[in-house]
Amino acid sequence: MDILELSYGGAFSPRQEPGGEKIEQRVTGLEVLLKKAQANLEMGAKAKRDGFGWVGLPEEEPEKVMEAAARLKKYDALVQIGIGGSALGNLMLQNALVHPYYNELTREERGGPRFYVADNADPDGTGAIWEMIDPARTAFVVVSKSGTTAETMANFLLFWNWLRLELKDAAAEHVTVITDPEKGVLRAFAEERGCSSLVIPPGVGGRYSVLSSVGLLSAACQGIDVKALLSGASLMRKRIVASENLEKNPAWLLAALGVAHAESGRNMLVLMPYADNLKDFTEWFAQLWAESLGKQGKGSTPVRALGAIDQHSQVQLYTSGPDDKFYLLASVEERKEMALPHCEESALKPLAYLSGKDMGEMLNAEARATAASLIKAGRPVLWLRIPRIDAFRVGGLIYLFEYATALAGEIMDINPFDQPGVEQGKRYTYGLMGREGFEKDAEEAEEFFQRALARTLVV
Amino acid sequence: MDILELSYGGAFSPRQEPGGEKIEQRVTGLEVLLKKAQANLEMGAKAKRDGFGWVGLPEEEPEKVMEAAARLKKYDALVQIGIGGSALGNLMLQNALVHPYYNELTREERGGPRFYVADNADPDGTGAIWEMIDPARTAFVVVSKSGTTAETMANFLLFWNWLRLELKDAAAEHVTVITDPEKGVLRAFAEERGCSSLVIPPGVGGRYSVLSSVGLLSAACQGIDVKALLSGASLMRKRIVASENLEKNPAWLLAALGVAHAESGRNMLVLMPYADNLKDFTEWFAQLWAESLGKQGKGSTPVRALGAIDQHSQVQLYTSGPDDKFYLLASVEERKEMALPHCEESALKPLAYLSGKDMGEMLNAEARATAASLIKAGRPVLWLRIPRIDAFRVGGLIYLFEYATALAGEIMDINPFDQPGVEQGKRYTYGLMGREGFEKDAEEAEEFFQRALARTLVV
Repeated sequence: MDILELSYGGAFSPRQEPGGEKIEQRVTGLEVLLKKAQANLEMGAKAKRDGFGWVGLPEEEPEKVMEAAARLKKYDALVQIGIGGSALGNLMLQNALVHPYYNELTREERGGPRFYVADNADPDGTGAIWEMIDPARTAFVVVSKSGTTAETMANFLLFWNWLRLELKDAAAEHVTVITDPEKGVLRAFAEERGCSSLVIPPGVGGRYSVLSSVGLLSAACQGIDVKALLSGASLMRKRIVASENLEKNPAWLLAALGVAHAESGRNMLVLMPYADNLKDFTEWFAQLWAESLGKQGKGSTPVRALGAIDQHSQVQLYTSGPDDKFYLLASVEERKEMALPHCEESALKPLAYLSGKDMGEMLNAEARATAASLIKAGRPVLWLRIPRIDAFRVGGLIYLFEYATALAGEIMDINPFDQPGVEQGKRYTYGLMGREGFEKDAEEAEEFFQRALARTLVV
Repeated sequence: MDILELSYGGAFSPRQEPGGEKIEQRVTGLEVLLKKAQANLEMGAKAKRDGFGWVGLPEEEPEKVMEAAARLKKYDALVQIGIGGSALGNLMLQNALVHPYYNELTREERGGPRFYVADNADPDGTGAIWEMIDPARTAFVVVSKSGTTAETMANFLLFWNWLRLELKDAAAEHVTVITDPEKGVLRAFAEERGCSSLVIPPGVGGRYSVLSSVGLLSAACQGIDVKALLSGASLMRKRIVASENLEKNPAWLLAALGVAHAESGRNMLVLMPYADNLKDFTEWFAQLWAESLGKQGKGSTPVRALGAIDQHSQVQLYTSGPDDKFYLLASVEERKEMALPHCEESALKPLAYLSGKDMGEMLNAEARATAASLIKAGRPVLWLRIPRIDAFRVGGLIYLFEYATALAGEIMDINPFDQPGVEQGKRYTYGLMGREGFEKDAEEAEEFFQRALARTLVV
């Protein structure tokens, strides 16, 4: 095992699909489609088709990112301004690979700037970040391909205005723009003000961008080994393209199981790692899976969970509620060694069974116990074993989930690289904000919204 | 409006149930059951039946909590050791009512100790907390009704052992126990060592305990106005019990809509506030709803979302994927005022429509736009409007969601106060940890788990 093990003996389940076909037969039957789908992804990448740019990212050299990071590491704080795919991957990498209380450490312990993400357009959040920083000692990285993402640009306007008031002509030195190589508002801004800039590589969509400058710059500033991330992804890529067989190809297996369970009425995919430092991985994956596949009335809903915490929150529902979920449980082999002590108090005798046990082994015992309980209840469980959480493995995991999601889209006959369903809400927001040209949208939005208000209970 | 407004004109939807009955008819038809259910809750509370203890919590005096908080506020750090209902409510109150970067503030700005929660049994998490604290300047609050919760007690053994090594006989002064008034390991420990202790009131289950010492002590230490929390809950209680009419009773409305949509095949309830400081409220609610109702093959799955962030992650699926969700969107009226500036750069001209707009209004426009998009797509939306996030309103919200969840259980003919489905996993864990008396469970767990491992792909 270099990167991970996937155990799928419990991933089919005794329940019949409505049509009578068993999950296992359906999964096997998808091999032909998967072969085509993989060929299509590889061809799209070679032909540099829009949306396929992420396929080759693991082979890119991160030199420009490393140079930019070297320049930014001297700052006290780094604020990334971006939302969705321009924030979730950054949070995921921080959660996975740096100290859980990174910002609270001393400069020496951290080795890099404190890190804040301004993603939401919530004045309380944005205001709080401004309170935490000294603008003269802070770098801002603003990420948007078009430079028109409303939340991102609203945050950027605020921070840029404050920066200009505080630092006058020196403000532009504090801003790095990550955007389209040629077009858009942020590219023009960088040229007008002479800001540093990096490029979102052509053909890479937001939710597939974490292995580009979008995800790597903030990671490198926090001391994460971005070369190891890419080399883990690259090895995963090799393993995937080398195999045209469900039993050898982890991306095929993940895609086929995800699709087959969704088709059979299990409309949720629960991702439940037993590791605090994979919590935000589930958030990142939730965007990838939902936004790629939730189209044309299809798609399954990603459910973000965390073991063992959700044993005390969601597992009652998982084992005893409706059989409407496909479970992906993940465990980590090597962790900090921490033996549970023997304590002398007689009151603590009932806990003697814990003495001398390693806490990481206990967490893994809980993961196995949950898997066993779910399998006993007839629920389908895919079991993922990761030897340890390091940049190399996280890179491999990222690439596996990206590839499997794109394959799932292909075999569902869905374009996994667009998001037409969010356009409606954007137009409504423009309209409600009074933007010129969106007057009709404002009217329509008001009309639908008033339906909700038509019956109101005041408490 | 004192606490909130609930608008439900968009909460029914044009889709017919499988049986042909419309959601609205079904909701109205539940009134008779709701009346019974409310009477049953009130009777159970009066008769002090097990599980019903939370009903009267808003009327309790928090004097003992305030005294304990006054004693603990002098410490540099407070570590709460607890999991599930002994952690999620604490995190929710912190997220809602104190500064987003509370731990990074200076002592003077905070006014109370830094706050850490040791919930998971993850050695990396527990080890990281120990690295952040000076034991001589840290208070520990350990919460478990029975004193046998495995994760909590594993963490407690580690912290207690470290404390004893560092502080010798002074260690016990640093520990406050919150547990059963008479029974259990932690009660006995407190007596053996002479630790301070508070009581989990009889009849209050973990997920309904946030308005008891379990949730209030850490809140008070962070300067949260716990009396205002309780008085908001108390007013909500008065409004609920005063009305036996769906159109007047917010708890009836929420329960009936949740149940009717679940019955009609919408097996997810999405809670999506447009406010950073209600993010953890969705985590707290997810336990309440899932663990109370996920039984006997019934229950709907709580989906935790956050606006506007999830517009860039989940809304594609929400508007264009399957019609399998009931949406509860929440907006907040008053926030920090923050006008978006006009910036002079010509590159920023396309953003002129934002100039002069208030960021909070923008966020609310996005919330309305999402509601309108969902309603246009035929999806059912309940709209919650909160005048502002303060302790009084948060108290009201907590009580509303608790009451509605309990009512939902009653009308589904489910006991909303037990969690039999988690016992299996606990026994399996004990078995796999080698605890005496659980050898058969270990065997059975191994047998089921080996089914998963039977087919393994190594990558």
